[in-house]
Amino acid sequence: MKIRILISFKESILDPQGQTVKNALHTLGYDFIKDVRQGKVFELELDGISEDRMNEVVPEIAHKVLANPIIEKFDWKIIK
Amino acid sequence: MKIRILISFKESILDPQGQTVKNALHTLGYDFIKDVRQGKVFELELDGISEDRMNEVVPEIAHKVLANPIIEKFDWKIIK
Repeated sequence: MKIRILISFKESILDPQGQTVKNALHTLGYDFIKDVRQGKVFELELDGISEDRMNEVVPEIAHKVLANPIIEKFDWKIIK
Repeated sequence: MKIRILISFKESILDPQGQTVKNALHTLGYDFIKDVRQGKVFELELDGISEDRMNEVVPEIAHKVLANPIIEKFDWKIIK
């Protein structure tokens, strides 16, 4: 089974990388871009785990290992 | 309109960050994880652009600015 975890800054947190990308895109003439937020994506290939256990353990992995829960939020889904 | 662009290494490209995360997860006992690939995600807020123009310009931005097309691939969709 393959899952995708998206991690991004919480709305209230400034995203300087995203701002830099936005400014670069404006310089290139893409001025219809009002905001850019950058985040991380992890694609995990899992094997030998039940769906119930996966629903329990994936949020745990995202929360404890991949994201910084103070400033980041995550979202995940099965992709295959 | 809000879009999400996912950028990840092409399948043939080694992903040392993903490998490191996989090893860390194994150390923590999550040994059902067979592979980890890490990538970037950009969420762009667009305004004042037609859907046709967006379909033209978003791949251009992803290809020319956000991704390195030699080693990375991208995928995008409208999220709002």
